[in-house]
Amino acid sequence: MTEKRVQRLSRKLGAIPGELIPVGLERDHTVKVTVIDYDATGHCADWEPANLEEVVPLKETKTVSWINVDGIHEVPVIERLGQLFGVHALILEDILHSGQRPKIEDLGNCLYIVLKMLTPGEGKSGVEWEQLSMLVGENFLLTFQEKPGGDFFDPVRQRIRQDKGRIRKCGADYLAHALIDVIVDNYFVVLEGIGDKIEALEDEIMEHPAPDSLQKINHLKRGTLALRRAAWPLREVIANLQRSESPLVRADTRPYLKDVYDHCIQIMDTVETFRDILGGMVEIYMSSLSNRMNEVMKVLTIITTVFIPLTFVVGVYGMNFEHMPELKWEYGYALVLIVMLVLAYGMVLYFRRKKWIE
Amino acid sequence: MTEKRVQRLSRKLGAIPGELIPVGLERDHTVKVTVIDYDATGHCADWEPANLEEVVPLKETKTVSWINVDGIHEVPVIERLGQLFGVHALILEDILHSGQRPKIEDLGNCLYIVLKMLTPGEGKSGVEWEQLSMLVGENFLLTFQEKPGGDFFDPVRQRIRQDKGRIRKCGADYLAHALIDVIVDNYFVVLEGIGDKIEALEDEIMEHPAPDSLQKINHLKRGTLALRRAAWPLREVIANLQRSESPLVRADTRPYLKDVYDHCIQIMDTVETFRDILGGMVEIYMSSLSNRMNEVMKVLTIITTVFIPLTFVVGVYGMNFEHMPELKWEYGYALVLIVMLVLAYGMVLYFRRKKWIE
Amino acid sequence: MTEKRVQRLSRKLGAIPGELIPVGLERDHTVKVTVIDYDATGHCADWEPANLEEVVPLKETKTVSWINVDGIHEVPVIERLGQLFGVHALILEDILHSGQRPKIEDLGNCLYIVLKMLTPGEGKSGVEWEQLSMLVGENFLLTFQEKPGGDFFDPVRQRIRQDKGRIRKCGADYLAHALIDVIVDNYFVVLEGIGDKIEALEDEIMEHPAPDSLQKINHLKRGTLALRRAAWPLREVIANLQRSESPLVRADTRPYLKDVYDHCIQIMDTVETFRDILGGMVEIYMSSLSNRMNEVMKVLTIITTVFIPLTFVVGVYGMNFEHMPELKWEYGYALVLIVMLVLAYGMVLYFRRKKWIE
Amino acid sequence: MTEKRVQRLSRKLGAIPGELIPVGLERDHTVKVTVIDYDATGHCADWEPANLEEVVPLKETKTVSWINVDGIHEVPVIERLGQLFGVHALILEDILHSGQRPKIEDLGNCLYIVLKMLTPGEGKSGVEWEQLSMLVGENFLLTFQEKPGGDFFDPVRQRIRQDKGRIRKCGADYLAHALIDVIVDNYFVVLEGIGDKIEALEDEIMEHPAPDSLQKINHLKRGTLALRRAAWPLREVIANLQRSESPLVRADTRPYLKDVYDHCIQIMDTVETFRDILGGMVEIYMSSLSNRMNEVMKVLTIITTVFIPLTFVVGVYGMNFEHMPELKWEYGYALVLIVMLVLAYGMVLYFRRKKWIE
Amino acid sequence: MTEKRVQRLSRKLGAIPGELIPVGLERDHTVKVTVIDYDATGHCADWEPANLEEVVPLKETKTVSWINVDGIHEVPVIERLGQLFGVHALILEDILHSGQRPKIEDLGNCLYIVLKMLTPGEGKSGVEWEQLSMLVGENFLLTFQEKPGGDFFDPVRQRIRQDKGRIRKCGADYLAHALIDVIVDNYFVVLEGIGDKIEALEDEIMEHPAPDSLQKINHLKRGTLALRRAAWPLREVIANLQRSESPLVRADTRPYLKDVYDHCIQIMDTVETFRDILGGMVEIYMSSLSNRMNEVMKVLTIITTVFIPLTFVVGVYGMNFEHMPELKWEYGYALVLIVMLVLAYGMVLYFRRKKWIE
Repeated sequence: MTEKRVQRLSRKLGAIPGELIPVGLERDHTVKVTVIDYDATGHCADWEPANLEEVVPLKETKTVSWINVDGIHEVPVIERLGQLFGVHALILEDILHSGQRPKIEDLGNCLYIVLKMLTPGEGKSGVEWEQLSMLVGENFLLTFQEKPGGDFFDPVRQRIRQDKGRIRKCGADYLAHALIDVIVDNYFVVLEGIGDKIEALEDEIMEHPAPDSLQKINHLKRGTLALRRAAWPLREVIANLQRSESPLVRADTRPYLKDVYDHCIQIMDTVETFRDILGGMVEIYMSSLSNRMNEVMKVLTIITTVFIPLTFVVGVYGMNFEHMPELKWEYGYALVLIVMLVLAYGMVLYFRRKKWIE
Repeated sequence: MTEKRVQRLSRKLGAIPGELIPVGLERDHTVKVTVIDYDATGHCADWEPANLEEVVPLKETKTVSWINVDGIHEVPVIERLGQLFGVHALILEDILHSGQRPKIEDLGNCLYIVLKMLTPGEGKSGVEWEQLSMLVGENFLLTFQEKPGGDFFDPVRQRIRQDKGRIRKCGADYLAHALIDVIVDNYFVVLEGIGDKIEALEDEIMEHPAPDSLQKINHLKRGTLALRRAAWPLREVIANLQRSESPLVRADTRPYLKDVYDHCIQIMDTVETFRDILGGMVEIYMSSLSNRMNEVMKVLTIITTVFIPLTFVVGVYGMNFEHMPELKWEYGYALVLIVMLVLAYGMVLYFRRKKWIE
Repeated sequence: MTEKRVQRLSRKLGAIPGELIPVGLERDHTVKVTVIDYDATGHCADWEPANLEEVVPLKETKTVSWINVDGIHEVPVIERLGQLFGVHALILEDILHSGQRPKIEDLGNCLYIVLKMLTPGEGKSGVEWEQLSMLVGENFLLTFQEKPGGDFFDPVRQRIRQDKGRIRKCGADYLAHALIDVIVDNYFVVLEGIGDKIEALEDEIMEHPAPDSLQKINHLKRGTLALRRAAWPLREVIANLQRSESPLVRADTRPYLKDVYDHCIQIMDTVETFRDILGGMVEIYMSSLSNRMNEVMKVLTIITTVFIPLTFVVGVYGMNFEHMPELKWEYGYALVLIVMLVLAYGMVLYFRRKKWIE
Repeated sequence: MTEKRVQRLSRKLGAIPGELIPVGLERDHTVKVTVIDYDATGHCADWEPANLEEVVPLKETKTVSWINVDGIHEVPVIERLGQLFGVHALILEDILHSGQRPKIEDLGNCLYIVLKMLTPGEGKSGVEWEQLSMLVGENFLLTFQEKPGGDFFDPVRQRIRQDKGRIRKCGADYLAHALIDVIVDNYFVVLEGIGDKIEALEDEIMEHPAPDSLQKINHLKRGTLALRRAAWPLREVIANLQRSESPLVRADTRPYLKDVYDHCIQIMDTVETFRDILGGMVEIYMSSLSNRMNEVMKVLTIITTVFIPLTFVVGVYGMNFEHMPELKWEYGYALVLIVMLVLAYGMVLYFRRKKWIE
Repeated sequence: MTEKRVQRLSRKLGAIPGELIPVGLERDHTVKVTVIDYDATGHCADWEPANLEEVVPLKETKTVSWINVDGIHEVPVIERLGQLFGVHALILEDILHSGQRPKIEDLGNCLYIVLKMLTPGEGKSGVEWEQLSMLVGENFLLTFQEKPGGDFFDPVRQRIRQDKGRIRKCGADYLAHALIDVIVDNYFVVLEGIGDKIEALEDEIMEHPAPDSLQKINHLKRGTLALRRAAWPLREVIANLQRSESPLVRADTRPYLKDVYDHCIQIMDTVETFRDILGGMVEIYMSSLSNRMNEVMKVLTIITTVFIPLTFVVGVYGMNFEHMPELKWEYGYALVLIVMLVLAYGMVLYFRRKKWIE
């Protein structure tokens, strides 16, 4: 999704705010809804509801229910869930609209969080992203993933099923934290990937700079930019969440949010370092171009400067004047050859003094 | 309007503040006034008043009245409307003066908003703009468009006429929001246009950089600059509107303003990305110039370096010395040819080792 | 005054703060004092006082009195006026000292404002400036202009004399606003001048970049810098004036100050755009140098590459070997000519394929 | 640790927050725990506990106890200490996790401080770092050093043992300050090392710029970056500590913290200066490349320009026309030699006028 | 002191905070203490105390006493004065430590101010500096100058002795202001010196850019940097002093401090302008290198391009074919000469059209 830089928003032109049209979505698959329902007492169920109405009672039960929607292109599904959980039309529009900037909104009965999941991509910038929308309620968590298929959350699901750590003992807010934590951990994976590419490129530029090296540097710059644009607003989102006065965020979840916040700061730090390094690589590339040119010029100059005077000398004795006494000397030819040798040797000495040849 | 960078303001020099002189305006057309009057009960009228006095009672009625003025070059029209709606002379001056920075002012009985409508332009920067001034009252909305002719607002007019969405149920503030929303949506259209041009230019620079490529990059930079200068203050305008304590902005309009605000942020984000990309393209262009030079130099050096020593050799045997034993050898000529072949081949090997030729 | 960048302040070294020594002033003319005295009732007088004591009663009268001093190099005049109007010695020092940064100070009984008047200059940066100090009292306005001779204020004087607009109905604060408004309007004139020079330079750089083009760009940069250094603190001055709690600024003058404030913002905006454009022009100039070099190199390479192999060929047949069978062939000469033609044509084809020649 | 720029955090992927896994650690040595216990009355003991339970009572005694842990790769040791001193699992995770950004957290019963110890390194950037975590309690100080072996703290240990200065009279907060002070002092040592390298490199670039000079500049830039990333957040940490309302920071320790804070500011100042200087060195390197190229080009041009016309002249008299009267003149040869001498001399004069040769 | 960029702070390594060791000091001279004691009633004494205890009673008297210490390398002198005036050991350490950043600290009974005195230096950056520490008490002012010998303060001493201006009527705070004022005035002198060097360098770069011009620009940049690092924190110091709630700063001294504050702002403004100009000069230098290269290349290309085809032509008629009819023509030689003349003339026309030669 990085390659296409401006999202096609024009389809929305003329639409009514709050009218639900999915924008920027892939449509070639069906939406999949999964539910995990658990509490601290040992209860833990895990199913795919046949019918959206099935999930409504979960809103009221004391158990924590995580309803995950894979794919957001079937508007009626999102719309129905919106109605069932009482979500404002503008929020539903944001969920459907896959170009959101990470943000948080307090809707009173629940918190709306939108953020970006990054994966190391095949593309040139090395980053691919997908939008994740969350609705964090008292006892439920709704997540909407842009693309169906693999996500990062299997370890979290395992922790719930196997009752590892505190997750079963805590509420929906801790579950939301666990998902954000996994997403931010994956930012580090993306960063590592970019870091490896930078190191490889650094060697390439020093050893044999190619015309497309600069292009590659620019693609990595865009990769770091994508990370910055995901991590910077996420930092704010987490800070808001942590300082939030909403009763939906429990006191014992806050230190965990602080922890994720620190991770975001670390990511921003590394991104800045990478940008600095990439900036320096542009300079190295440019100077290595100049160095190459210098080397070529030196070869040209040495050859030309050695042979042009010699060619002149032989030209002199190629002239057809009748009265050229040297031509008749017995050792004239040998003498000229010696003179030229001395000349050539002098040139070479000169270039050695100038350090053009070793 | 982008091409001429500083607006001719000198005509105003010496004018009295509050004196009404249209500045920077096109004058070759007449002003057109249209009215749409509607309420939630089903009433909806739509006409062009023959006479400005006709619109005065609309100020008092409970229905929402949108009075749109197309063209601002007929000072008496603006002045009369100003008097009828009790607007301060300085505000009227701002309306007439088409180089305003987007801003909002609370005039007590109404809000004065000025912003820029952008369209993808024919010009080099790819952006054209027009000023829109709004006066948002309790039950009325006055809009002044700089240029007559097409605007973006037909979809809004359709929504009013066909009673689609909430528009007929809400007040003048929601109508103002609907117009701003359409304008911001068109910023995305402009962004897309610039994005397409960037992509085309990127390929051009990589494949055959022309001397005017840099010029084109600069024009696109100016296009993004124009967008930034429109969107950045607009963001503030909307934030002020949303946080405004004025009773003219109703509580249920505020979430919609927040939505437009988020769009502005997204635009700024994309603009920054574009500027980053354009900055990288300058570097690529510069380095591709150096690469071309390197290539030319290599050809020159290879040819010169191969032939100059050979030319020297043939010059030697063109000398006219009487005593040059080689000249009399039967295979002297053949030998010299072979020596030169070996020399040339050695040179080529050397260049291959240096990776100058493949 | 722009050309000399650091003002000679060393003459002041060792002086006592508050001791009055004019610094950075032109001394070859006499100081001229003019008074305009008016009120809303129709009274309006306009004279040059023979004696400074004449102006003292104006301080007490209910009429608004504008005392303008042209030239600040006669210390006793400034000192006497300072005593008559009870101004602190440090303020008098500031008035005499022509390198002030625009600022405002509330002296209780009056406001001290210092700002810069800019005019399009003959100099390289295209900007000349002059310092204006104002003392705004309840019923009087003292202005001190650095240089005698023409100022921008004749239109204001006309408005007072002819009772145009609100000026006769308002106090000294409105008069001060009127002067600031005229000064800021002249900033636009300066901006336009720079804009025209930028446009001319842009064409010059594209068509035939001269070695001094960069110099010209830098001079224009300094011009914009001068504008920024005048407008940026002026913006603060006006903001302070507008928000000031001093009773000397009346409520109905404030919207007019807001208007001037907006003009300052517009100037800063345009200055930033100009700096951006000038930065882009440096890049274009640099790349056009590289392009020229490339072009020169191509010509050199084409000529050399075509003729050096040919020269080698003719050299071969200029050798004096006794046994060179080709020399005796009847069509040897013709054959060699044909071979060389083919060679040359091949080279030209190669360059065409490389797009070095069209 | 600087060379590897992104730390391998992926091993943690899927881990539960608060689960203790050491990350980024060296594992080839054992953990060493040392204790120093002292008070103002003359008591001072100094031993290596055989058993972690030994240190528990120190928590309650009135004496100040400094428990230093060298190496953090043995999770059970850290975990046990954490339990004994009642530290939150997330803090323990931070201690084990060696890529923390310097920060401070108030845990109520103690303060958690993490910072970076820098040493001049063998690596290219000239900087190596190690993480130090501190837990500052009422009467105890726990320090966790990432790597075992030498630290900077021997002078502090000496001061405690020999009762020099105020250290024995003050609490754990002063001890913490003493350690931070030593660490910041070592930042200056690192800065000096970088400064010396900069000076050496500066001379190298001016005298004989090598292709890897830019690489070296970039490594020094990274060294300054590492320092900035250590010192900048440390500054905040110290500011927070100084302004902290925690009773753990005594009033008479605060001026000492202010002193360290000032040192941090000085370090940031010098870092900025270094970055400025390094930026200027890139420019000098680039221009010295251009200067070298210019020099090479001049030699080439001088030689070519002098000899090519001469070679043409001798070529003319090498032609084999039957009717070339000059060839038969008795002094033809001498004349041509003289003409060529004059030509060559003229060229040399021309170059001298152009200042290409002295 | 500018040349050595990082101060040798490592000698301090391991020292105890508050232990007094002079750092970065010159030691080859003795410390000189001078006292001036005066009041508004006409009393004014001026002597060098034989014994430090002599100055103690001055602390209590109502007269203002200025005790100036020239040279800070004799620790016992500073330590004794510190004890006599009750100064904290950390402050004494700061006084001895000559690399302080300008700052102010309120010590309750007196204010500690440290700042930098700049003088135009012989060194490459054109700036030399010295540290001045001040202790401003109720009735006394202690100043510690880093280096003995000449200072800027003789004019102030004259004003005290000759009772010029308000200085005898005011307290120690006004005296401190007078010293700061003199120091800031000297910043302008330094600025002027840099300005003159910039102007000279500007001409040099335009007329004959030397390889070390860039070096010179960088040295001037460092000079401006030194000024900025002195003036920027001084600005804060003065602002703090002016807004200080300490009774040690009297109300009637505050306007004078505001005056010095404005001077600091002016200095920062000029520094920024200088940095801008120096940045532009780097660009001009770089482009002038390119221009020179272009010129050299053009000469090379013109000569080569004119003579290489001609040399080819004469080579053709130097071939030894038996059947070359042209060689036997009577006017063959003349014809060839004419052809070559035409060829050469055509080339020159071509270059003229390309504007390579005038």
